[in-house]
Amino acid sequence: MRKLDPEKHEKKRQEILGAAMRCFLRSGLKGASTAEICGEAGISPGHLYHYFESKDAIIAALAEGRLEKISERLKDIVSGGRSVVAALLSELEGQPGGPAGFALFFEILAESRRNPELGKIVHGHNRSMRGLLAEVVRYGQSRGEIQTQLDPEVAGAAIIGLTHAVKAVALQDPKQDASKVVSLLQQLLVRLLTTSLEDARKEPGRTKKALARSRA
Amino acid sequence: MRKLDPEKHEKKRQEILGAAMRCFLRSGLKGASTAEICGEAGISPGHLYHYFESKDAIIAALAEGRLEKISERLKDIVSGGRSVVAALLSELEGQPGGPAGFALFFEILAESRRNPELGKIVHGHNRSMRGLLAEVVRYGQSRGEIQTQLDPEVAGAAIIGLTHAVKAVALQDPKQDASKVVSLLQQLLVRLLTTSLEDARKEPGRTKKALARSRA
Repeated sequence: MRKLDPEKHEKKRQEILGAAMRCFLRSGLKGASTAEICGEAGISPGHLYHYFESKDAIIAALAEGRLEKISERLKDIVSGGRSVVAALLSELEGQPGGPAGFALFFEILAESRRNPELGKIVHGHNRSMRGLLAEVVRYGQSRGEIQTQLDPEVAGAAIIGLTHAVKAVALQDPKQDASKVVSLLQQLLVRLLTTSLEDARKEPGRTKKALARSRA
Repeated sequence: MRKLDPEKHEKKRQEILGAAMRCFLRSGLKGASTAEICGEAGISPGHLYHYFESKDAIIAALAEGRLEKISERLKDIVSGGRSVVAALLSELEGQPGGPAGFALFFEILAESRRNPELGKIVHGHNRSMRGLLAEVVRYGQSRGEIQTQLDPEVAGAAIIGLTHAVKAVALQDPKQDASKVVSLLQQLLVRLLTTSLEDARKEPGRTKKALARSRA
């Protein structure tokens, strides 16, 4: 009966996920073999399949775990009465994993185009993230902290886009001062959330002309 | 003497680059072998090495070619008197290669962390792109079209970050309406370029508080 003990099973499952993450960060998505993951977790390949049926299943579980953490963090904001805008700003900085994590993220994103199973995981994860952020935006709007003309779903997607921009900037030239770029992108996010886009269109002169030209 | 004919050499070189790009878009950076590239270009592997000494050298040449095209496009803006802001906005839409190109870009970015040769290419390309964009920003500032408090180098890096955001958004969920997100990011870019960040800090109430909190 021991192998059916759900607590033990979950504990081992989490250990394997931790080991897999270390392997992915060290060797990349494609570079990390199931043999390497089993070695890191101290189990046999036959044993691994009691927990995960494929590398994709491991990635799906890691993505699920990340989503849960973000979800909890965002729920804390809502229940704790913290500033929604400040919390969303801190999401732009607090990207987990550092450069190795960013590279892994982009490798998964690239691979999701070729591997339909991975594609489903990436697209589903993104939809859930967007849903979470849209909820937070709606909450900020209900508190009068975020401007109400903003479409919460589109804003959620744009916020995710900005987090990707931060990751890409950090990777594309390690010598540049990424913190200045992050700070500029944060200021853009503040404006997105707090200033009506209609106001921007009403600004006189060149802004209005530039917007009109960009649509021509 | 035929093999020293520089025109013929350059023509063949460009043919090989075109063939390599088709292979990379089809099979990915790691998936495309030199054998596949030679097959696509209709040459023998021994012949390939008269033109490029490695796959990295091919990627470097492709990056160089892309940089030249962007450079020409930006020079046309400066010499043609077009709106600098509108031109920069169109850069957010006109990302080449479509989803396959975006995936290839992110695969290269991820791989650049592990392959120092590729790292040099990516970092150098990024510095050149930033330099080009900073020049355009300076020109826009000299024309009074772009606000002068903006640091041209940091703005250049932020614009590149926004182009990456557009690429990532397109890949992470093909079913979402990416055009709405692109439009929102474009509106953010217009504000970055045309409204002083100092003005944002002077805005009363919540914006100011949110900015202050984000720095705390």
